[in-house]
Amino acid sequence: MLLHILFMIGITVEAMSAALVAGRREMDWLGVCVIACVTALGGGTLRDVLLGRHPLTWIEHPGYLALVLGAAAVTMLLAPMMKRLRSAFLALDALGLAVFTVIGCNIAKELQLHWLIILVSGVITGAFGGVLRDVLCNQIPLLFRKELYASVSLLVGAIYMTAPHLGIAHDAGMVAAMAIGFSVRMLAIRYHWEMPKFVYKEDWE
Amino acid sequence: MLLHILFMIGITVEAMSAALVAGRREMDWLGVCVIACVTALGGGTLRDVLLGRHPLTWIEHPGYLALVLGAAAVTMLLAPMMKRLRSAFLALDALGLAVFTVIGCNIAKELQLHWLIILVSGVITGAFGGVLRDVLCNQIPLLFRKELYASVSLLVGAIYMTAPHLGIAHDAGMVAAMAIGFSVRMLAIRYHWEMPKFVYKEDWE
Amino acid sequence: MLLHILFMIGITVEAMSAALVAGRREMDWLGVCVIACVTALGGGTLRDVLLGRHPLTWIEHPGYLALVLGAAAVTMLLAPMMKRLRSAFLALDALGLAVFTVIGCNIAKELQLHWLIILVSGVITGAFGGVLRDVLCNQIPLLFRKELYASVSLLVGAIYMTAPHLGIAHDAGMVAAMAIGFSVRMLAIRYHWEMPKFVYKEDWE
Repeated sequence: MLLHILFMIGITVEAMSAALVAGRREMDWLGVCVIACVTALGGGTLRDVLLGRHPLTWIEHPGYLALVLGAAAVTMLLAPMMKRLRSAFLALDALGLAVFTVIGCNIAKELQLHWLIILVSGVITGAFGGVLRDVLCNQIPLLFRKELYASVSLLVGAIYMTAPHLGIAHDAGMVAAMAIGFSVRMLAIRYHWEMPKFVYKEDWE
Repeated sequence: MLLHILFMIGITVEAMSAALVAGRREMDWLGVCVIACVTALGGGTLRDVLLGRHPLTWIEHPGYLALVLGAAAVTMLLAPMMKRLRSAFLALDALGLAVFTVIGCNIAKELQLHWLIILVSGVITGAFGGVLRDVLCNQIPLLFRKELYASVSLLVGAIYMTAPHLGIAHDAGMVAAMAIGFSVRMLAIRYHWEMPKFVYKEDWE
Repeated sequence: MLLHILFMIGITVEAMSAALVAGRREMDWLGVCVIACVTALGGGTLRDVLLGRHPLTWIEHPGYLALVLGAAAVTMLLAPMMKRLRSAFLALDALGLAVFTVIGCNIAKELQLHWLIILVSGVITGAFGGVLRDVLCNQIPLLFRKELYASVSLLVGAIYMTAPHLGIAHDAGMVAAMAIGFSVRMLAIRYHWEMPKFVYKEDWE
């Protein structure tokens, strides 16, 4: 199934870019592997823990974990070559974001949850692996400050959920959501789109 | 039911003050919403994940999530006016702390857990939303350093649990716990009460 | 049972050294207790939440929680004397690491999970209490940067799992895994062994 292949590409790419982030923090090999796993599989894990879905995907299918660990190892070996692949990476990462979001929405939808929860499930799956990575790397999650990452995830979820109400078939809506999300993300990177910030200067606490 | 109304006031206030904290970190709109949700609903979510209670409150009742998101949105719109409401905020926040703690104790008590776990459940519900917020905002949880926040939560839990053994009816004990906790918190803010600190200067690690 | 006694020694020691770390951050008494609980019981809690095992150990047996809280309290009282016990602490901590890892592997094995998950379960149990502590103390987890801690945990898990295939009895393999892990950890401390680091200097994000 297409979604399955896209999922495997997604976790591979997330693991590789997470390994590079960890490398910039001079972590040891094992730390790099942990960061790669948390980034690639953390969003889905958080979603399943919140939804009470067990066993977790990577516990039932340890092959995903092996894939992520392999991707981290390859990244450490081939890091000097990674620079040239930067564009390919960003594109695959944008694809991963869209795919993860659709998967997350899909799962919550099958559980017949409220549309708000379906959206949240999509965003958590798509964007929270990066939040967990940033917490472990001791920085304010980029997600909250710089990137149009979560917004794209939200957009993908919204399209995915609106499509059926417009009479669009489930699979077509899914593909459309991923395609639009991917495009917006690529445009956001190209033109440095950002969400407006909320700046509050009073000393509150 | 009174507790239910107090709970809704509590999550609203927590969401609003969390949004202001996020604003001071210059987060984007979506980041502000995430921080608001985590702060207002994170304590109860952590409690339920640890207790294995599913579905989570906000998954079963997405209205709470909508309320929190709405409160965050209103805060961003009306931030300049918030300063004048500071005292009202602190009072409602103290109330929220007491209410959340009682709710957390109540849930663990209904599961017939040990009194120590009931206390822990109360403190997690009351005070850990703020801990999660601080972790995401990349600061040492205030809770552990400056505030008499968790201590008040502990006090509320202790009163709630002691009351029945003094022959006080369940509801009366609950109200008494909340009233005393609220008062102590307000006094703590007014007179800058703090818990003693444990300071250890040796280079240990 | 030996493992049970070692487990209690392990959580006591982890709680005590966590309390000292918290003391160096000038946390208040309650913060110190929270850090002690999270460090001593957090690894096993994370493991059980990921595996969907409920009730959690410390919820079913609140005595463990009381032990950890007591250890934290004693540490605050006797902190000035702790310096002299440093060597004993490091040894007991190394023992705790090995014991926790074996317990974590054991639990996943009884659930008949894949060997990769058994290893992960061991490392999470052994080493992630410290990760959670560092996240709450707002520092990049030491684990990922300085210590041979997680590597020893991985080694213990690997020996524990290989032993049966070499015809070694379960209990003997368990003891061997703990003994070797303990020894390697002590040697690593003595000779400052470290895992190689992955350093990546390109500006990627």
